[in-house]
Amino acid sequence: MRVGNLSDRLTLFTEEGAVDAEKASDGRFGGDSQTVYETWDDFSSWARGADLSGGRPFDVADLGAPTPTPAQVFAIGLNYAEHAAESRIEVPDRFPPVFTKFRTALSGPVTTVALPGGGTTDWEVELVVVIGRRAERVSAEDAWSYVAGLTVGQDLSERASQLAGPAPQFSLAKSHPGFAPLGPWVVTPDEFADPDDLELGCSVDGEPVQRGRTSDLLFGVPALVEGLSLVTPLLPGDIIFTGTPSGVGMGRTPQRFLQPGEILTSYVAGIGELRQTFVAA
Amino acid sequence: MRVGNLSDRLTLFTEEGAVDAEKASDGRFGGDSQTVYETWDDFSSWARGADLSGGRPFDVADLGAPTPTPAQVFAIGLNYAEHAAESRIEVPDRFPPVFTKFRTALSGPVTTVALPGGGTTDWEVELVVVIGRRAERVSAEDAWSYVAGLTVGQDLSERASQLAGPAPQFSLAKSHPGFAPLGPWVVTPDEFADPDDLELGCSVDGEPVQRGRTSDLLFGVPALVEGLSLVTPLLPGDIIFTGTPSGVGMGRTPQRFLQPGEILTSYVAGIGELRQTFVAA
Repeated sequence: MRVGNLSDRLTLFTEEGAVDAEKASDGRFGGDSQTVYETWDDFSSWARGADLSGGRPFDVADLGAPTPTPAQVFAIGLNYAEHAAESRIEVPDRFPPVFTKFRTALSGPVTTVALPGGGTTDWEVELVVVIGRRAERVSAEDAWSYVAGLTVGQDLSERASQLAGPAPQFSLAKSHPGFAPLGPWVVTPDEFADPDDLELGCSVDGEPVQRGRTSDLLFGVPALVEGLSLVTPLLPGDIIFTGTPSGVGMGRTPQRFLQPGEILTSYVAGIGELRQTFVAA
Repeated sequence: MRVGNLSDRLTLFTEEGAVDAEKASDGRFGGDSQTVYETWDDFSSWARGADLSGGRPFDVADLGAPTPTPAQVFAIGLNYAEHAAESRIEVPDRFPPVFTKFRTALSGPVTTVALPGGGTTDWEVELVVVIGRRAERVSAEDAWSYVAGLTVGQDLSERASQLAGPAPQFSLAKSHPGFAPLGPWVVTPDEFADPDDLELGCSVDGEPVQRGRTSDLLFGVPALVEGLSLVTPLLPGDIIFTGTPSGVGMGRTPQRFLQPGEILTSYVAGIGELRQTFVAA
């Protein structure tokens, strides 16, 4: 099942196209796409049995973030060994570092993003987890049952301020407007042969720059849900940026950053694609 | 003017006591205390001219956080020179580090808090700013006009994981349940002779441990609103923990941390007091 946000309305996406949830459910579910996570079990039970014929074509430019107003946005650092190595940071022998992307950075999947001054904005494709039930002290074994679904995210990062010593600016440097595109929709875990092993990657102007598999996550989705929920309850609609594989621009020789006019496409296999066009600020 | 959250209802606090905003405004304002910040200018204009007689006594245990569900929670590190020195961290020569306290950590002003294992939970009294109008690229000169008011916050911090190398866990270690008490209410800036120079402090079992003045902030309220809003729009109801003065437990010789049975009281002069009682987890 694929659920998203089309013109600020809760929408199901079928092979035919977009189905408005409020119309299809005779008003039982719908409207604001964020609130569906509060009733996720009821909604997904209904949607699995519902008549979703009559899907209409849609413009991807009308897609918003499938979770536009999460209560909490968790973002995980250093969660692939090869990315930690290219970042020249030791992998911690415990739970990876957690920061946030402030909510105003969230956007839909197809956008134009203004590059902040300094010229050091970098890409980080990530698998993003969407929580479907309140999770508090959940074991890794049970964790998937708290997940509504998965989507694609870009953890765009302005490196100069992110990594400036002595006090690196993780959350703020990753929260410029448009720095957290999400989408194109949320795909439920049952749609994947193995939700713990998904290919992901991104390309700049068609040239592949990152490619990885979520099976290489140091802390996979179950371990992240377990570890976060031990400290902080996870709420329906909360999202987790799970970390990025190797291949970011700052890890290259010479370093490479996003330039005005470039187009970044990002994917997770079985979910879909994001597309960001960059312009000068 | 003092505005808060009594039994999950928007409430004005006068010398007589608590006045329910919905009743006093004949339904024009009220209910959920968070949403008032969306209409802050209208609300505060009304409240200044309204008949707020008939305030009733109330129990401080029924006070919730005056901003229970902010879209964004900003927390500032190393914003007093003496605290940076006791933390043995160099003061950055630019905007101070920004992290978050995840929303589930927010609570009302009078609570019981379970201490996480490890025994290294520390206190950090802070002035907290509440935003009253969307702020984007606001100058320091104009910043106060975007502030609804000020409240007291404790940035409780579990030091062992917060400061563990090589990847310190700033946001998560400060987001255990109950680690962000707020209140007792929001006081509007016009209530202070000088809102840029407020005394704040906290005591453990009656013994003063922190005492400072917000005039010693390296980045005061106007500079914080300017600097944050340059990167990330600030939304009505967003809050900023502005940083803590010296006197935290980890900076003492020997170090001192909160113990089960201890009571922490925290104040900002002209606002009010928080009171946390600690128990073993």
